[in-house]
Amino acid sequence: MTTSQQVELLCIGNELLIGKTLNTNSQWLAKRITSLGMSISRITVVADNINEIVHAIQESIQRSPAVLLTTGGLGPTFDDKTLEGVAEALGQKTEINQEALEMVKEKYLSYAQQGKMEAAELTPHRVKMARLPKGATPLSNPVGSAPAVSIKHRYVVIISLPGVPSEMKSIFDDSVAPMIKQSAHGMTFFETSIISKNVMESEMAPIIDIVMKNNPHVYIKSHPKGTETAPFIEFHFSTTDKDKSVAKNHVTKALGQLKEAIQTKGGTIEPLNPEA
Amino acid sequence: MTTSQQVELLCIGNELLIGKTLNTNSQWLAKRITSLGMSISRITVVADNINEIVHAIQESIQRSPAVLLTTGGLGPTFDDKTLEGVAEALGQKTEINQEALEMVKEKYLSYAQQGKMEAAELTPHRVKMARLPKGATPLSNPVGSAPAVSIKHRYVVIISLPGVPSEMKSIFDDSVAPMIKQSAHGMTFFETSIISKNVMESEMAPIIDIVMKNNPHVYIKSHPKGTETAPFIEFHFSTTDKDKSVAKNHVTKALGQLKEAIQTKGGTIEPLNPEA
Repeated sequence: MTTSQQVELLCIGNELLIGKTLNTNSQWLAKRITSLGMSISRITVVADNINEIVHAIQESIQRSPAVLLTTGGLGPTFDDKTLEGVAEALGQKTEINQEALEMVKEKYLSYAQQGKMEAAELTPHRVKMARLPKGATPLSNPVGSAPAVSIKHRYVVIISLPGVPSEMKSIFDDSVAPMIKQSAHGMTFFETSIISKNVMESEMAPIIDIVMKNNPHVYIKSHPKGTETAPFIEFHFSTTDKDKSVAKNHVTKALGQLKEAIQTKGGTIEPLNPEA
Repeated sequence: MTTSQQVELLCIGNELLIGKTLNTNSQWLAKRITSLGMSISRITVVADNINEIVHAIQESIQRSPAVLLTTGGLGPTFDDKTLEGVAEALGQKTEINQEALEMVKEKYLSYAQQGKMEAAELTPHRVKMARLPKGATPLSNPVGSAPAVSIKHRYVVIISLPGVPSEMKSIFDDSVAPMIKQSAHGMTFFETSIISKNVMESEMAPIIDIVMKNNPHVYIKSHPKGTETAPFIEFHFSTTDKDKSVAKNHVTKALGQLKEAIQTKGGTIEPLNPEA
């Protein structure tokens, strides 16, 4: 068994596919997970459709990431289908999870105590939020009503988070981040950027090749922000290492070589990130 | 053969997987394509890695969308691997496309005439942007240097657009939108939203079920923006039809029924979209 460092995201929601909602959840998660030392290998977005969800989960499992994180589809309405999808993808049934039911009960009891008397009743749509795949563990939701859910299948841990950003973030920080950090086995990610002016990206392309050959641990990516005739390029340097200072040294060395090359070509440099 | 109305997006770029860049391209494309009458069935994000690109394209082709749109990875640098990936996924070689080479030549000639004399030379990294899969057609890039590319494989049209938003949008509007509109066979998408206050989402869930059963053409999705105890919910209504006024009538009828139910429950309504 290889200890994969990879995480896949599966974002579930029609609103993402019609362009109604900008997928800020996936950027937030990608940034956090990268900074915790694991890496995102793929992001998939599918509709609130049981077949689409099942296929996407099964395809992901075949690629064997260490973690598959889903967002969206945990609420009380008919189109919240994520847990049914996870169960079907794993060949499991769903069942009322007693621990999850207690979490939901407590939530609505506290809402009722806050004067929302219509919350006292445990309606079928509320109970639905405690119906988990067999063998799953609920994760407490400090902000909203629906618990998040974790289940292990072969070597893949599948974690389903709500789509509402405040709930997703809060559960991630409380229950998921510590596990991600542990799975990263001490790897850290280091990145920095510089901006160059007055050198075309097509002129820099062969120079990037040379600097990357000289610095095999560092990945350099150019992000053209202007045009070829008014060039304004961000060069993003990144690396991972067990030792943060080694990672930083690797990047600093590559950065120095690229800076020199830009200046030789008559370009100017502007720091973007004062840390570098 | 079914005439699929479905489009898949494949966004290529490490910057999306480390959370450095927010994927605004996919939202922009999703909104445009939906409003042109086709629908996005899946969005996938992968790294600048040839194997990842090849697998993602092959998996998409197996799902038989009418169109697979890729973004990113068309530029002059080593990590611009999209066209190599498209070719490999289709079992094709890449070759210098003469029409694309003319486009690239003309661009750099015009840059040179604008005083950027270092642009006059057709270096290998510039020629690279004209190396397309065999059988592909270049699409002119009014903003940047790298042409976009279109190739048909079985029933799937694969279109590769640059990742720089201004270039992507400009090529989409010029060369892709007319084709999407035609493939939509006159279908139109209609959507609207209302905001309700003071009714919990879990209370509305059974009502949405009833209104959707009464209005089988309309999809209603609730987007909770507050909390269960301070509820503030957007209800989004959408439908597609050949006839825009039929689509609008379907939505208006469902909207009326949901509004009534919200008010019966003691909730208040705020219009979000004055069009409805």
